Amino acid sequence: MTTDVEGLAGRLREFARDREWEQFHTPKNLAMALAGEVGELVAEFQWLTAEQSAKPDPETLARMRAELGDVTLYLVRLADVLGVDLLAAARDKLDDNDRRYDADLYRGSARKAPPHKTA
Amino acid sequence: MTTDVEGLAGRLREFARDREWEQFHTPKNLAMALAGEVGELVAEFQWLTAEQSAKPDPETLARMRAELGDVTLYLVRLADVLGVDLLAAARDKLDDNDRRYDADLYRGSARKAPPHKTA
Amino acid sequence: MTTDVEGLAGRLREFARDREWEQFHTPKNLAMALAGEVGELVAEFQWLTAEQSAKPDPETLARMRAELGDVTLYLVRLADVLGVDLLAAARDKLDDNDRRYDADLYRGSARKAPPHKTA
Amino acid sequence: MTTDVEGLAGRLREFARDREWEQFHTPKNLAMALAGEVGELVAEFQWLTAEQSAKPDPETLARMRAELGDVTLYLVRLADVLGVDLLAAARDKLDDNDRRYDADLYRGSARKAPPHKTA
Repeated sequence: MTTDVEGLAGRLREFARDREWEQFHTPKNLAMALAGEVGELVAEFQWLTAEQSAKPDPETLARMRAELGDVTLYLVRLADVLGVDLLAAARDKLDDNDRRYDADLYRGSARKAPPHKTA
Repeated sequence: MTTDVEGLAGRLREFARDREWEQFHTPKNLAMALAGEVGELVAEFQWLTAEQSAKPDPETLARMRAELGDVTLYLVRLADVLGVDLLAAARDKLDDNDRRYDADLYRGSARKAPPHKTA
Repeated sequence: MTTDVEGLAGRLREFARDREWEQFHTPKNLAMALAGEVGELVAEFQWLTAEQSAKPDPETLARMRAELGDVTLYLVRLADVLGVDLLAAARDKLDDNDRRYDADLYRGSARKAPPHKTA
Repeated sequence: MTTDVEGLAGRLREFARDREWEQFHTPKNLAMALAGEVGELVAEFQWLTAEQSAKPDPETLARMRAELGDVTLYLVRLADVLGVDLLAAARDKLDDNDRRYDADLYRGSARKAPPHKTA
């Protein structure tokens, strides 16, 4: 069985309704819950070197996967209560980035500001 | 044209490759970038009341949508470099939550801890 | 016995040295640890109404206080390894804000952008 | 002129009163504002290597210092509206950590869990 974002949003709606938790699921509260879960995700990486973070041992990867799952749940739920199509919003942002960061100008550079804005 | 998570991950892979940004896209760095974008998203909600957050004006909603897009991009990219199926991870977590928060015991209560653990 | 920021920074230096944890305490890692602790702090507030957050019960307030302590420890440690005087940095920012948000123009408004920049 | 935490809290109280912003400064809102500022701070470090983060160029360090200042302002303000003594809370947490992470057992190890809990 495959899951897509819309299917997940539907299950989360039902989950909240069954528990009468819709009252707590304001966008403001869900944004905070998302921030809390991202904090837990970041904590999994904080003492790892860049190399270690790219090759986590199975136990660490399982914890990272669980935190990624939690983050996704709150992100999908927040977008749903706001009526935002998450993947369309992401695609639009990626289209912007494609235009904004010209591949030739930004090759190999982590700079986010346009070249003429940096010293 | 529809976008799914896998399609988005593929476009992000290409985007990073074209700019030779793979060197910056360690899981550790991407987790930080995700935290930074979630900070921007949270900032959109910080001075709103719960009611205002549920009925944002069009300009505010457009900013929220853009931030949700940014968060999604980094989340999808982070999961991709870790080899994690984001929607499967979310579905597994939701299955856990379904078992953990019995609808009858938790109805109308925001408590996260099992009932016998709270005063 | 009173504690000031400098005294706390000194104790944290000693704490890290005794455990040979200086190797982990890069500014990058400490910034992540700070973000993780702020996530835990935010989680204490996520399901509370504004009113509830202003009058937490003693048990909740004790948890908030502990999280505020954790956030402070990492913030002081991060500033120390960067050689930044935290209170001077805060005072400079407050001086800026005093100039930027004219009391008469911003009275009763949560807008952060200068008035002429908003529609 | 020196600034201490209590002096900063007093100035922030006055700053909010002059602008009639106390209505926005609920603990819940301030916790969100703190998370937003920490997101901006983390973003300064996201593409830096550990080594680069320890030796930022003057321009980058100035931005880090400004973000540290913003984080401190919201942290001090949040503690003040909750009636929490920030430095005492931090000192209590550090006392806990001193007991919890025995220097001999944890020397050179980033593990946070007690030794008998890890494989």
